[in-house]
Amino acid sequence: MRKKILLASVVAMVIAQWSSTDAQTTPASSSAAATKTLAARLGYAPDAKLLIVHADDLGAAHSIDVASIKAFESGLVNSGSIMVPCPWLSEIAAYARNHPEADLGLHLTLTSEWTPYRWGPVLSKDRVSSLLDSTGYFYSTESEAASHMTPAEVEAELRSQIERARSLGIQPTHLDSHMGTLYQNKALFEIFLRLARENKLPTRMSREFPERLSFLPSLLTPDDILIDKLISIEPDVPPEGWAKFYTDTITSLQPGITELIVHIAYDDAEMRGMTFDHPNLGAAWRQRDFDFLTSDKFRALLKENNIKLISWREVGKLIEKQR
Amino acid sequence: MRKKILLASVVAMVIAQWSSTDAQTTPASSSAAATKTLAARLGYAPDAKLLIVHADDLGAAHSIDVASIKAFESGLVNSGSIMVPCPWLSEIAAYARNHPEADLGLHLTLTSEWTPYRWGPVLSKDRVSSLLDSTGYFYSTESEAASHMTPAEVEAELRSQIERARSLGIQPTHLDSHMGTLYQNKALFEIFLRLARENKLPTRMSREFPERLSFLPSLLTPDDILIDKLISIEPDVPPEGWAKFYTDTITSLQPGITELIVHIAYDDAEMRGMTFDHPNLGAAWRQRDFDFLTSDKFRALLKENNIKLISWREVGKLIEKQR
Repeated sequence: MRKKILLASVVAMVIAQWSSTDAQTTPASSSAAATKTLAARLGYAPDAKLLIVHADDLGAAHSIDVASIKAFESGLVNSGSIMVPCPWLSEIAAYARNHPEADLGLHLTLTSEWTPYRWGPVLSKDRVSSLLDSTGYFYSTESEAASHMTPAEVEAELRSQIERARSLGIQPTHLDSHMGTLYQNKALFEIFLRLARENKLPTRMSREFPERLSFLPSLLTPDDILIDKLISIEPDVPPEGWAKFYTDTITSLQPGITELIVHIAYDDAEMRGMTFDHPNLGAAWRQRDFDFLTSDKFRALLKENNIKLISWREVGKLIEKQR
Repeated sequence: MRKKILLASVVAMVIAQWSSTDAQTTPASSSAAATKTLAARLGYAPDAKLLIVHADDLGAAHSIDVASIKAFESGLVNSGSIMVPCPWLSEIAAYARNHPEADLGLHLTLTSEWTPYRWGPVLSKDRVSSLLDSTGYFYSTESEAASHMTPAEVEAELRSQIERARSLGIQPTHLDSHMGTLYQNKALFEIFLRLARENKLPTRMSREFPERLSFLPSLLTPDDILIDKLISIEPDVPPEGWAKFYTDTITSLQPGITELIVHIAYDDAEMRGMTFDHPNLGAAWRQRDFDFLTSDKFRALLKENNIKLISWREVGKLIEKQR
């Protein structure tokens, strides 16, 4: 049997480890552009608190799709990313075609982590055999995946994911990495950066990364975009602590651009079935995210704390300008 | 956009067209074994009414899996078949491993018919490109599939489905064909028969078939197993007619072996999402099947009409004996 996995990605671990880091005082990368903050380059005042509220895992399940779409309609969750290899891709692609204004990126996917419900590559399996476990699906964990995958096959598969998304009418505004698999080592991160640059898209990278991912500084160029901070709730927060976590997050938000990474779905039969052996990021977890992040309380918190939501589309305009 | 499809398979059309046919008076195939009825060969009296109540589409959705398993537990639905290429395969495979006594076959799958939720082959896509539509999934309809697929690729894919099922611990008791795709032409049916014979498994074929599928008589051998009749509810039955249809079916059941083909799921969010644009065989349809086929009314009908449930496993014993 597959070993139990903790879904917390490298991103999440990074966030957990550095939760006390003040993004404003962390040394920026050695980028020429860093002489001016990202927010300033976008025309915001130095004290502007800018937030992307980002729903991961679109396309992975119907419950995720409909709850995330409902959350987008609230205006309080304003960005999301799509898992191209997943069974419900066609559903979320139809939404993307009908909502060209939506801020939708691609959640590049190389893992299939739910015991009863699996998926595999977009590319032909014999072209990406290093990506597949013994049952023919993607590996369950990011570490297993990273230890088996060849970079050439990863790159081919991810190019195919981007191509399939575009062929279905999705015009991605950003790229990120499901379970942080692409942050596992330098070879994988290089692919992530190469695809982002070629597609002129921003990625999920913050100014916290260069110090912590030792391979990263040598890979970055002045043109790469790093937002200031990433935040996500972690398994050590008990259900009754959900509101406090998000309230504290918002009331203590620092100036600059922060991405709040959330996981939204309904606590319904499909999600319970899918996550039955894994409460972290499970059905109840995602319902709690939905409930708080679409609430009047959250809306009021954003207003009271002068927080402006911005999108990856807006951040990405800096790339269009500079290239 | 994909054209709207009627999911009624060739099997269903066969049944609908010939609903007035009395299986007992239809000439049997020119099989030596046909000198004795199938029921008699299994040791049953000439007037025994034998019924397989068979749930299709296991593995296609969580709702289908859990509702079908619940129906199996009632004892009133006693057989089912699994769609190996579908996302929830691992869930139903775990059930199969834990219930080796269950009468589970393989619902050989070459189509992906639900608009928002799709699947594709078990085999590497390059090896079965004739099976794939322009988006890289199986075709939506059995007719599109049949007109594009090469027999060699169909056979390779179906062998791979059987192999994957066995590798996950499923020991199939029978084979059938999702949406009747393998009944579309002689070349496809030959593959179906070849796989059944090689695996020594009975298939969904009735004594009604040879007269209606013109290519069939030349393919059959005396050793092939044909049950007497197939029955399934059709779209012309309104929701309020469900109980009457099944009541009439049971009260008029003839001696011999009949398979009642049913489609079971809950009318929940997942099924509604999956079938949103296709009420035939949709969420409410499948809930109605669940409700009636697990009811005390259905149990009483079986008892009052002296109907005995038998399984494909039991039918398949004739193959073991003769080979």
